[in-house]
Amino acid sequence: MDDLRAEFPVLEHYAFLNAGTCGPLARTTAQAMRAEVDQALAEGRAGAHFERMLALRDRQRAAYAGVVGARPEDVALTTSTSEGMVRVLAGLGLRAGQEIVTSDAEHPGLLGPLAAAREHLGVRVRAVPLADVADAVGPETALVACSHVGWLRGDLAPAALGELEIPVLLDGAQGAGAIPVDVRALGCAFYAAAGQKWLCGPIGTGLLYVAREWQERLPALGPTYVNLETPAEGLAARAYRDARAHDSGSASNETLAGAVAAHDVLAAAGWDAVHVQARTGAARLAELLRERGFDVAPRAETTLVSWSVAEPEAAKARALEAGVIIRDLPGTPYLRASVGAWNDEGDFERLLAALD
Amino acid sequence: MDDLRAEFPVLEHYAFLNAGTCGPLARTTAQAMRAEVDQALAEGRAGAHFERMLALRDRQRAAYAGVVGARPEDVALTTSTSEGMVRVLAGLGLRAGQEIVTSDAEHPGLLGPLAAAREHLGVRVRAVPLADVADAVGPETALVACSHVGWLRGDLAPAALGELEIPVLLDGAQGAGAIPVDVRALGCAFYAAAGQKWLCGPIGTGLLYVAREWQERLPALGPTYVNLETPAEGLAARAYRDARAHDSGSASNETLAGAVAAHDVLAAAGWDAVHVQARTGAARLAELLRERGFDVAPRAETTLVSWSVAEPEAAKARALEAGVIIRDLPGTPYLRASVGAWNDEGDFERLLAALD
Repeated sequence: MDDLRAEFPVLEHYAFLNAGTCGPLARTTAQAMRAEVDQALAEGRAGAHFERMLALRDRQRAAYAGVVGARPEDVALTTSTSEGMVRVLAGLGLRAGQEIVTSDAEHPGLLGPLAAAREHLGVRVRAVPLADVADAVGPETALVACSHVGWLRGDLAPAALGELEIPVLLDGAQGAGAIPVDVRALGCAFYAAAGQKWLCGPIGTGLLYVAREWQERLPALGPTYVNLETPAEGLAARAYRDARAHDSGSASNETLAGAVAAHDVLAAAGWDAVHVQARTGAARLAELLRERGFDVAPRAETTLVSWSVAEPEAAKARALEAGVIIRDLPGTPYLRASVGAWNDEGDFERLLAALD
Repeated sequence: MDDLRAEFPVLEHYAFLNAGTCGPLARTTAQAMRAEVDQALAEGRAGAHFERMLALRDRQRAAYAGVVGARPEDVALTTSTSEGMVRVLAGLGLRAGQEIVTSDAEHPGLLGPLAAAREHLGVRVRAVPLADVADAVGPETALVACSHVGWLRGDLAPAALGELEIPVLLDGAQGAGAIPVDVRALGCAFYAAAGQKWLCGPIGTGLLYVAREWQERLPALGPTYVNLETPAEGLAARAYRDARAHDSGSASNETLAGAVAAHDVLAAAGWDAVHVQARTGAARLAELLRERGFDVAPRAETTLVSWSVAEPEAAKARALEAGVIIRDLPGTPYLRASVGAWNDEGDFERLLAALD
């Protein structure tokens, strides 16, 4: 993985352990983005610019579909995990009296639309520990919406979710690119993920997987731009009948090219190797922290490691002064490190030294 | 305006007359975007990166609010005109039996959600000529949704829209930055516009103005990411109570910085001068086309000029070979030229020569 590590200049100066927020940018990613800006500057955004946009979208869709084990036409290209989550929450037509089961440790990107669904649709929201979400489903539960990998502690949603009759919407922000993801094996109806975290792409990228059997039941109005298959037909125009109907229409070529280049850097290193390295590294860091007497939060075989400290915000700031980039999690006692295949033992040593 | 023209390298080689699709990029815009990519590459997207993001968002919001004559807190930062249009169409809670009045010459970005509203909400959609939309309002009309400046012919929505009791949603994609816009004078409840057209910003930028008296009636669920004011409060978190609730959460620093830099190039030239130059230029081009015997479509004092030709797609392709960038409008007999303050008489002469 030394070759992969060398792709990321930020690692020359920092122990960068925060891909759970935004991954490091690779040289080739930045170069691909600059090249698109230069092309637009010199040639204008017209004609060939849009042919290239369509080609880049196809490449991004195929790449992201591969990351989660889906067919390309079952994957929409979104601008963020949160956009994908809301497209489902707003699109399913939930009504008063119905219930959404979620966990008690979700990200604001899901909490926001859940609060809105409660306020504006009259939907009940029940929050239980992530491990219990499948067991919490009752007769009025219309949807389970929760993390695949918990952003606070790196725990995993229970496998029993795949056995439910009702649809499951997984927030895969800490899943896609971090750990192996197979949406068919997970048995979820919807899987939303980000491009700027573990896929190391630009901010403004993401995916929404919509299982084939749910595509007809997710109308294309709730979302933003409706991706028309036949725009020249005016009011008779049809939206795509698969997940592409939920594409965001607003990704620039520099964003698309960055997303594709970032994916290709990781794919070239080999996804299996990337996943093994990242998860092994995270387990190793958790062990090192425990050896130093830190209270590591219960976690699963993921790429996130969280541990309690007395003053997380101050500790994070001290770490940054020592060139170590981690994050605190407001409202919790935790510091969180995100371990990627690009991190090495030296990064962990710097972190431990900064915590002393 | 020679100084302004010199900011746009594409004009050195092309008669670029297509800002109605995407405006030309200025040198300083591209430079601002490259600088953000370089910063993210070297320093990582953490800490200072996000402080800068918030500062850039404030600057973009103030800039875009100024362009349409609104207060910053009444303007959401979106990723496209279409996103703003759908946030309103999906957010207003329209129901079966209600009617939307629109025009018969709208953009796919509105046609898509209108078709979806008809199919999924059972809303009736009535399309009349743009000049007649105010007169077409009846007792069951819940919303007028139409162009401020028509994208096909550069005509204008009737001023009588400002007198209606029901809400009006204007598609300002060909308005904001092209002609003077004052949302209070227009009397509209909602005004959606783009950043990548007449504001010359990156793709993935836009604005949605929501009049103060409509902010409480536009819930923040229909849209994508819900912009929380107090995310640390979990399920008790509140969304912003003004237009900022409808912000997209997904603009990168390179996109934000590009949008701000692009705006500043035009603002430095003076908005009044920019508008006068563009509209005078468009009127002059329309006159030149008529002198050559072309049938110029009825238009208003805007920056778009459309005229009929026998084979628009082929004529557009021939123009491109001659270095002239215009567009055809599928399903119509028109070619369309978009005239900005950056265009000069030489651009018009090249266009006329290419049409011979």
